[in-house]
Parts: sequence; C-alpha cells; structure tokens
Amino acid sequence: MFEALLPREYGFFDAFEKQADRIVEGAKLFEEIIDNLGSAHSMARRMKEIEHEADLITHQTIEMLHKTFVTPFDREQILHLITRMDDVLDSIDAAAEALWLYEIDEPLASSKEIAKTLRLATEQVREAVLAMRNMKKNVKRIKEISIEINRLENATDAVLRTAIAKLFKESKDPLFVMKWKEIYEDLENATDRCEDVANIIEGVVLESA
Amino acid sequence: MFEALLPREYGFFDAFEKQADRIVEGAKLFEEIIDNLGSAHSMARRMKEIEHEADLITHQTIEMLHKTFVTPFDREQILHLITRMDDVLDSIDAAAEALWLYEIDEPLASSKEIAKTLRLATEQVREAVLAMRNMKKNVKRIKEISIEINRLENATDAVLRTAIAKLFKESKDPLFVMKWKEIYEDLENATDRCEDVANIIEGVVLESA
Amino acid sequence: MFEALLPREYGFFDAFEKQADRIVEGAKLFEEIIDNLGSAHSMARRMKEIEHEADLITHQTIEMLHKTFVTPFDREQILHLITRMDDVLDSIDAAAEALWLYEIDEPLASSKEIAKTLRLATEQVREAVLAMRNMKKNVKRIKEISIEINRLENATDAVLRTAIAKLFKESKDPLFVMKWKEIYEDLENATDRCEDVANIIEGVVLESA
Repeated sequence: MFEALLPREYGFFDAFEKQADRIVEGAKLFEEIIDNLGSAHSMARRMKEIEHEADLITHQTIEMLHKTFVTPFDREQILHLITRMDDVLDSIDAAAEALWLYEIDEPLASSKEIAKTLRLATEQVREAVLAMRNMKKNVKRIKEISIEINRLENATDAVLRTAIAKLFKESKDPLFVMKWKEIYEDLENATDRCEDVANIIEGVVLESA
Repeated sequence: MFEALLPREYGFFDAFEKQADRIVEGAKLFEEIIDNLGSAHSMARRMKEIEHEADLITHQTIEMLHKTFVTPFDREQILHLITRMDDVLDSIDAAAEALWLYEIDEPLASSKEIAKTLRLATEQVREAVLAMRNMKKNVKRIKEISIEINRLENATDAVLRTAIAKLFKESKDPLFVMKWKEIYEDLENATDRCEDVANIIEGVVLESA
Repeated sequence: MFEALLPREYGFFDAFEKQADRIVEGAKLFEEIIDNLGSAHSMARRMKEIEHEADLITHQTIEMLHKTFVTPFDREQILHLITRMDDVLDSIDAAAEALWLYEIDEPLASSKEIAKTLRLATEQVREAVLAMRNMKKNVKRIKEISIEINRLENATDAVLRTAIAKLFKESKDPLFVMKWKEIYEDLENATDRCEDVANIIEGVVLESA
C-alpha cells in the first residue's frame, strides 16, 4: 500500500522542482536579455518556450491532483503552490515581451539591479522547493529562506520606488514613462509572487511539523 | 431524502447557466457598442444592468451555498466558478464604460477583432456550462471546449500584442495610448477569465469522472 | 477540554479586531495626508509602520492557524479574512506612497471625497468584525453593515468614474493624468477590498446561523 503511494507523492515534488527550475531559468534569461537588448526579440522567444513548459507542468500537476487520492499535503495548497510558481514566470515573460515590443534599446540602471534581485529570489524559491522533500528536517532552513526572500522583495520595492519617482521626474516623454512603468511593475509582480510561493511553502511546513 | 436534495442541486446548475447567458449577452452587446460608438453611453447602461444581474446571481448562489448541505460538487469550486464568471462580465463592463467615459468615437481595427474573439470565447463558456449537467457523459466534449477557449485566448494575446506595439509606435498622443491600452487590457482580462472558467469546469469534471 | 480551546478561538477574534483597527487608522491617516500634502512624506512613514503592523498580525494569525486544531470557523475563511483585511491597508499605503513619490502638492477635490468614503467603509468593516464575536445574535446587523459597505463602494465607483473622465478631458499633462489615475485606482482597490471583507464575514455568519 505504502509503496504504491510513494511514487505518486514523489510525483508532486518532481513537478514542483521542475517548475522551480523553469523559474530560475526564466529569471537568468531575463538578466541576459536586459544586457543584450539588441537580441531581445529572439531571446524572448526562448522565454515564451520556458513559459509554455511551465504551463504544461501546471496542467499536468492539476491533472495528477484530480487523479490522486492521497496527496503529500493539502490539495488546495498543492494547487496554490504550482499556480503561484507559474505566475512568477508569467510576470517575467510579460517584462521580457514588453522590452522588445516597446523597442527598448537601452536598459535603465535600476532594471539591471531589479533583474538581479529577482534572479536571487528565484534561486531561493528553488532552495525552498528542494527543502520540501524533507520537510520535518528542514523547518528551520525553510524559515530562513522565507526571511531571505522577504528581504529581497523589500529591497526590490525600495529600488523600484526610487526608480519610478526618478522616471516621472526626469523623463519628458510620457510614452517612455508608461513603457518602463509597466516593465517595472511586471518585475515587481514577479518578486511578489516569489514571496507568495515562500509563504505557501512555510504554511505547508508549519502544518506538517 | 434524495428527492428533496435534487432540486437544490439543480439550483446550482440553473445559476451557472443563467450566469453564462449574461456573459454571452454582455459580449454580444460589447460587439454592438464597438460598432455604434455614438450610442456607447446609452448602450453601456444596458451593460451595467447585465452586470448587476450577474452580481445578483453570484450573491444568490453564495447564499444557496451557505444554506445547502449537499452540493453537486465541491463548495470551493462552486464559489470559484460563479465568481470567475462574474469577473468575465466585470471586465467586459469596464471596457464598455471606458469607451464612453473616454469619449472614444472611432474603434481601432484590432478592438473589433478582439471583441469578436471574446464573444466566441463566451459562447464556448456557455457550451461548457451546459455540458456540466451531464458531466460523466461529456468529459471529452468539455476537454475539447477547454482547448478551444485556450486557442481563442492565445489568438487574443497575439492580436493584442501587435495592437499595443502599434499603438505605442504610431500614436503621438499619450492620452490616446493610455485610453486604448486600458480598453485592450480589460478585454484581455475578460478572455483570461473565460479561460479560468474553462479550467475550473475541467477540474470539476476530472474529479467527478 | 473546552476551556483550553476557548482562549485559542478568542485569539482569532482578537487578531481580526486588531487588524480592523489598523485599517481604520490607515484610512484616517490617509485623510490627514490628503489635507496636508506638504508633510506627505513623513506622514507616509507612519502609514508604512501601520502597514507593517498589519503584516505582522497577518503572519501571526497564519501561524496560529497552522498550530490550532479547532478553529472558530472554517480555516480557509480565516485565512481569507485576515489577508483581505491586509490587502485593504496595502492599497491605502500604495496611494499614500504615490502622493509623496509623485510630489503631488495639491489634492484633487474628488480625492478628498473618495478618501472620506473609504474611511467610512473601513469603520463599517470594524463594526462587522466586532459583531462577529456574537455571530448568531448579530446576523441581521452584519447584513445591514454589508449593504452599507456595498453602498459606499458604489458611491466611490460613481465619483471615481466622473473624476477619471474629467482628468482625461481637462488635463493637458499626461504624466499628471498617469499619477492621479494610479492614486484613484489604489483607493478604488482599497474600497473593493472592504467589500470583499464584508462578503467573507457575511458568508461566515450565514454558515454559522
């Protein structure tokens, strides 16, 4: 009985880890795009592929959820976790798309900084997801990761605030302001969703402990 | 016992169907408004009525949910389904309102195309809702509808992306850009919410099968 | 057994009330900021503190939720209620931040009106939260509050619609329009979230009755 269930349970963790890999890959690609805006369009195509892979993983996880009787933790939380991870990538993809769609040819300094913080946050998300395999042993570790992601999110907020104030103050071109405001907000959303993921994982771990 | 419960269960499906009718009606009305922008204000008043009817249906469904002991499927999913359908109409209403509020007097070509795709998506939503009455028999049919809605949503995304890039490139009036960007985003949201509805229905059907 | 559980259950109501106090405090502070835009920056710092306190209350409530076996009502609804209340404050904080970040030095007339309606809505939220202590007795009272919050939300919508149309029509400065549109939308979100809170409370009460 137990042996029959184990593979199924492990299936969910496999899905979470695959999803976390996509997120980190997306955030890394975004950093590269920001540094190579001349190739933004072709690189954004790869982003679209990653985003599509994440969609598939989400869809498969939901199917698995509907077909599995015993799940490693609460069904609602599994659904929440996989879709929130998907949301991270959707926001990164939206930012990448805006870069080439709006024909941005030079990055603002803050966008590089935010892209880096975002990539660090996604790496922490992957750490947290990996630590879930052995929840009871990793309660403390997951709490630390959660605090670190919260710190990165606050750092992004502060940089973003200053960047947007500067944008409104210094740019005389309203369309330029609109474009960058959208890109900044996409990146902010991506970081916020990383924090949501950390909160969900912390909740799962607290309940299991 | 069973006889007493049946009418209640059927009550939920009645509510879903009524709500689906409102959505289709709203999407059709939006297409008409786009073609008759001179009468946008008075036609938007009818949209507000439809939206209000949908609010009532949502509210009644939630009350019914709280008073019903045995529901035809998971309570959370019923709540999700009825509110997501409501969200579709809220977004269509927001787009209609923006048209007259911003005194738009000529439709952009893409807005007509997107309005049509959205209307097709709402008709698929109604198909899916009708198919729920006989879930077990319609598993395959609902999956097909879900795929079709996903295709329509992707089509909308592609048209929208090009439309917004064009808007930023060709318009010299930032206020014009802001107005149409908002309308496009409302329509995108409406189509996204149709996809959410399809996903919820697919989930319900998978679990019941 | 019962005595041991009671304090825990009461703990949740304490948390809801503390959170409601923060919301009312935030809405009052926002009204003051709008009347004293010269001191917006320093006053927004106090707003940030209130928002941080609300974050802590949310976090503690979630921890309490994970550690409590018997909860006064459905776990999902407790989570929903506390995070939606948190969302009210997040939106008020975002509006306050925008005021100083964008160096707004004069309030638009409608912003004062909306700030007042929002404050009234938060006071109704607190009333509803207090009435939850004695749910069965207060069913009718909570329904009345819910209707009143809905009325306030509709009033905000109407004022907002006119204000945004006026903004687009009369202002020649697109950046000015963008700034105020964002502030108005933050305030609209805050009021919408008050209505969400009322709906959640109404749901809880209906189920318990």
